[in-house]
Amino acid sequence: MKVVIVGGVAGGMSAATRLRRLDEEAEIVVFERGAHVSFANCGLPYYAGGVIEDREALLLQTPESLAARFRLDVRVRTEVVAVDPAAGTVTVRELRTGDETVESYDSLVLSPGASPIVPDIEGVGRALVLRDVEDVDRLVGALDADARTAVIVGAGFIGVELAENLRHRGLEVTVVELADQVLAPLDPEMASPVADELRGNGVRLELGTQVTGIGADTVTLADGRLVPADIVVMAIGVRPETALAVGAGIEVGPRGGIVVDASMRTSAAGVYAVGDAVEKTDALTGGAGLVPLANPANRQGRLVADVIAGRPVRARPVVGTAIVGVFSLMVAAVGWNEKRLRAAGRGYRAIHTHPQSHAGYYPGAQGMSLKLLVDPDTDAILGAQGVGGDGVDKRIDVIATAMVGGLTAADLADLELAYAPQFGSAKDPVNMLGYVADNLRTGTTATVQWHELPALAEAGAVLVDVRTPAEFALGSIPGAVNIELDQLRSRAAELPEGQLIAVCQVGQRGHTATQLLRQLGRSVRNLDGGYRTWRAGQVRVDQFA
Amino acid sequence: MKVVIVGGVAGGMSAATRLRRLDEEAEIVVFERGAHVSFANCGLPYYAGGVIEDREALLLQTPESLAARFRLDVRVRTEVVAVDPAAGTVTVRELRTGDETVESYDSLVLSPGASPIVPDIEGVGRALVLRDVEDVDRLVGALDADARTAVIVGAGFIGVELAENLRHRGLEVTVVELADQVLAPLDPEMASPVADELRGNGVRLELGTQVTGIGADTVTLADGRLVPADIVVMAIGVRPETALAVGAGIEVGPRGGIVVDASMRTSAAGVYAVGDAVEKTDALTGGAGLVPLANPANRQGRLVADVIAGRPVRARPVVGTAIVGVFSLMVAAVGWNEKRLRAAGRGYRAIHTHPQSHAGYYPGAQGMSLKLLVDPDTDAILGAQGVGGDGVDKRIDVIATAMVGGLTAADLADLELAYAPQFGSAKDPVNMLGYVADNLRTGTTATVQWHELPALAEAGAVLVDVRTPAEFALGSIPGAVNIELDQLRSRAAELPEGQLIAVCQVGQRGHTATQLLRQLGRSVRNLDGGYRTWRAGQVRVDQFA
Repeated sequence: MKVVIVGGVAGGMSAATRLRRLDEEAEIVVFERGAHVSFANCGLPYYAGGVIEDREALLLQTPESLAARFRLDVRVRTEVVAVDPAAGTVTVRELRTGDETVESYDSLVLSPGASPIVPDIEGVGRALVLRDVEDVDRLVGALDADARTAVIVGAGFIGVELAENLRHRGLEVTVVELADQVLAPLDPEMASPVADELRGNGVRLELGTQVTGIGADTVTLADGRLVPADIVVMAIGVRPETALAVGAGIEVGPRGGIVVDASMRTSAAGVYAVGDAVEKTDALTGGAGLVPLANPANRQGRLVADVIAGRPVRARPVVGTAIVGVFSLMVAAVGWNEKRLRAAGRGYRAIHTHPQSHAGYYPGAQGMSLKLLVDPDTDAILGAQGVGGDGVDKRIDVIATAMVGGLTAADLADLELAYAPQFGSAKDPVNMLGYVADNLRTGTTATVQWHELPALAEAGAVLVDVRTPAEFALGSIPGAVNIELDQLRSRAAELPEGQLIAVCQVGQRGHTATQLLRQLGRSVRNLDGGYRTWRAGQVRVDQFA
Repeated sequence: MKVVIVGGVAGGMSAATRLRRLDEEAEIVVFERGAHVSFANCGLPYYAGGVIEDREALLLQTPESLAARFRLDVRVRTEVVAVDPAAGTVTVRELRTGDETVESYDSLVLSPGASPIVPDIEGVGRALVLRDVEDVDRLVGALDADARTAVIVGAGFIGVELAENLRHRGLEVTVVELADQVLAPLDPEMASPVADELRGNGVRLELGTQVTGIGADTVTLADGRLVPADIVVMAIGVRPETALAVGAGIEVGPRGGIVVDASMRTSAAGVYAVGDAVEKTDALTGGAGLVPLANPANRQGRLVADVIAGRPVRARPVVGTAIVGVFSLMVAAVGWNEKRLRAAGRGYRAIHTHPQSHAGYYPGAQGMSLKLLVDPDTDAILGAQGVGGDGVDKRIDVIATAMVGGLTAADLADLELAYAPQFGSAKDPVNMLGYVADNLRTGTTATVQWHELPALAEAGAVLVDVRTPAEFALGSIPGAVNIELDQLRSRAAELPEGQLIAVCQVGQRGHTATQLLRQLGRSVRNLDGGYRTWRAGQVRVDQFA
C-alpha cells in the first residue's frame, strides 16, 4: 500500500505517524511545499515576540528524524501541483529545481491547510503574513532591521497575539479591524475587556475601519488618516487551500472547504482530506463549518490513518473550542455566540457571571467574566465564552466537555469540580452558571440582558440598584434608584409602581433582590451580569439595538 | 412554615439562604454549636500557616449579616441536643448558659458535619484537631507560643496541607501515617512523587507506623522511637456526626453516615440531612459512600431547600472529585482508584501518562503524571488521578465532567480542549489518555503495569528499553536491554526470542516500539507509563505483589 500525504503539519503529520504505527509495511510519502515539516505554527507569534527564544524549538521534527523513527519519506520544498484521482496519481514539483514527476498512490490524504487572506489593496506587496517558519523569519528579519512601528490588519486570534508580541519587542503597534470589536468569536460585551487590555498595554485599536492602501512606511485608513507602519501584517483570516482539490474535480462546499464525510473521504475515490482545508460538521446544527484549529486537525489526521488502515472510525461534529492569550488575559470560547444565534434566528438564553478564579478568602484570586448560551427549549448548552485571569481555560474546557457529553445547562450545577481554596470554589464558577441556568429554566427567576435596557427603560421600567451607596457612587446606570440589598426588605415600599429591574455589580445580589421583590408581589427581573456586564456592553450598545 | 437547620456551615448555610430566596415567608432558624457560621473551613490550614493573613477573611458571614440580607435567625453557640421527630421538636441548649428550650419545626435539616477522629491513646488530651475557627485559634495560639516541632498524625488531605503550612511557619514537621503511603485516595505510584515533594520541603515522613503515645513534648511511635512534638495534630480522618440522628432513631447506614434518599429525606418524616454527615450514593456502584467534601455539601444544601420548597429535584450520585495542594504540586483525583477496584474485585485497565501542562516549545511547561482507570468491558471511566504542576486541576475536572456526561475513555480523544501553546497542547493530555484508551480498547496495543514486571520477568519476558543510551545510563530497570527507538527497526534481530516488554521514559516511544515489534511478528507489550511510573512504584513494589 502506498499512501501519499500532501502537507506535513498537524493533520498530515498526525496521519503519517499514526499510519506507520498501524502498518509497518505501508509506503508513506509526505510532500510539503515549505521548507519545514511538523513545525509549531501556533508558536510563531511568540517566536516573533522573543518569548520563544530558540528558533529550533519551533521545529518539532525533521525529515531525517521522521525517517529514522517512522520510516516516512518526507520531501520538503516539494509541491503537489495536480491530482488525477482516476489514474491514482499526483504531479509533484520540486520547488528548488522546478522538476516535475508523477507519483502513484493507493490512498491520498490532502492536508494543505488554509492560507492567510490578503486583500487586493495598493501596496499590499510589502505586507507580511504569518503562516509558516519562512513567514516568521521574514517578520523577525524586519524587526531586527530596526522596525519601530507596526500595523496589524485584523483583530482575530493571530492579530491580537501578534500585537502583544510586537509590543513585547517594543514596537508601536496599531491593530486595524473592520468589525466594531476585537475577537469576532466573542460577543461585544465580552470583547470589550479584551480591547481595554490591549489599549492598557499600549496597543492602538482602530475598530470599525479598514486599511485602504499601504505606503512605504504608513498605511492609509478608510477615513484618509495615515498610520505609521514600518511593518504591515495581514491577519484578517484564512481560507481553505482548495486549489488542488478544485483542479482535481473534488467537491468543495458552501463554506469554501473541501467536502468530506465522517471518514474524511472526499468526493474522489481514494482521496481523503483533513485539517483546516476541510469543512467540518457543526455540533449544533449538523451543517458545514470552517474550524481552522489545531486540535481537530490533529484528531482528523489520526482518524484518517485509522480509516486507511481499515478501522471503523468516524469523526464527531465539532464544537470549536478556542483560546487566546492577550497580555494578562485568557480569552476562550466554545460553540456559538449570541451574535451568531441571533443572526440564525435561534432562541437562546444568555447568562453572564463575574466569578473569581478561586475562593476569595485565599490570596491571589483573579476575576473572570463568563457567558453561557442555552437553548430555552431543551436547556442544551449552545456555547460559552470566558475572559479573565487564571482558570478561564479550565472553565471553558469543562463546559466543552459537558456539551459533548450532552449535559444540560442545569446539569452544570451538579458537576463535582476539584475544590481547594487555591484552585477553585466550593461552588465553582461552572456550578454557578448551572445554578443560574436552573433558576431560569424553572422560572424561579427572570433576567434581562444589558442590551434590552434601553427598550425597557422606554417602556417605563425602573432600575433598582441594590449595591451599597459607595459602589453606586462609583458609577451607575442612568435613571437607577439606589436601595442597598440589606435595606430592601424594609424599604421596598419606597419603590415606584410598575416593572422593576434589579441591578447589582455582577448579578448575584440582584438575584437575591429579585427573589425578595417577586415574593412581595412585584414584577421584577434581574439584570444579568449586573452593572459590570452592562458597562462592558456600552462600548457598542447599538450592536444589539 | 418553620424550618430548623442544625449546623451553619456549607450545607446548612446553603440550605438556609436558598430557602429564603425561594420563600420570603418561611421562618428559618439555624442553630450552630460553634461560635461562627459560614466560615471557610477549607482555609483553616492556610490561616494557620499565615498564607491567609487576616482571620476575618475566614468568617464569610455573621449572624448579623445573614439576618440583614436573608432574614435568617442564626444562633451560634447553641447546640441541638435532641430531636423528637414524632413531636416535630428539637431540644436546644444555649452553651453559654446551659439553658435548654424546645423548638418546634415543620421541616428539620441536619447538617452537623463530620468530626475529626481522635484515637484513644495516652496523652491524646493535648492533641489538637482542625475543624473550626476555635480549633485554628488554638493551633495559632500554640504556634505563637513558640512551638518549634510538630507531629501531624495522618497523611490525608488535611494532614499534608497542615504539614506544608507548619513548614511555612518554620517548624520541624513530622507526619506519621499508618498506611505505607501518603494520600490514600491515590494509588502508591501516584503518591510516591507527593511523598518526595513533602520530603524535599523538609517534612519528615513516618509511613507504615503509628503514634502509640503522646508525651509532654514528644510522641512515641510503634517501634518505641520518640519524635519531638511541641504540637500534635490529629488528622487521621473524620467520622459523620450522627449522635443526634441516632438519638432520634433516625437510620444510620453501613458506612456510618445518616441514610438519606435522593431528596435528602432521612428515615424520619420531616427530617432531612445533608453534607459530611450523610451517606452519598456512589456513581460507580450505586452503593453508599462517605464523601466529606465541600462541593457536594453545598449542592445538597441547595437541593434540600428546593425539596422543602416543593420542587422536584433529586441528588445525583457522586464521583468524589478532590484536590489538594502540596507545596508546588497539585494533587487531584476523581472516582475510584486501582487499590479500591482490586479490593472490590472489579476488572479495570490502568493508563499512566506523564505529559506537560502545555506545549513543550513554549517556555514554562510543567510536568504532571496522570492515571486513568477504565472499565475493560464498557470502556467507562472509573477514576483518574493527577499529580504535578499547573493544569492538573483542569484535567481532572474535565475527566470528572466526562464521567458525569457518560463519555467513554476513548471518547476523551475527541474532546476539543482549548489550545494555545501557553495553555495546553494540540493533543491535550486528556486527549492522549483517550488515544491510549482507544488503542487498548481496540487491541491495537497492549500494555503491562509496573507492578506486573516481577512476575513477567520471572516468566522470562525480556525488557527492551528504547530510550537513548544517555537516558538509559541515568537509571533503568534491572535486566533491560537497551536499543534506542530510532535503531530498533534495523536492530530488531538482536532481540532474544520470547515475550518482550518495551520500556521508555513515559510510555510514548515504548508504544511506537511496541507497534513496530508487533508488526515484525513479535509478542510484545508496552510498559504503561514507562520507566517513570515503574520507578515511582518502587517505593512500595509489594503493594500489588
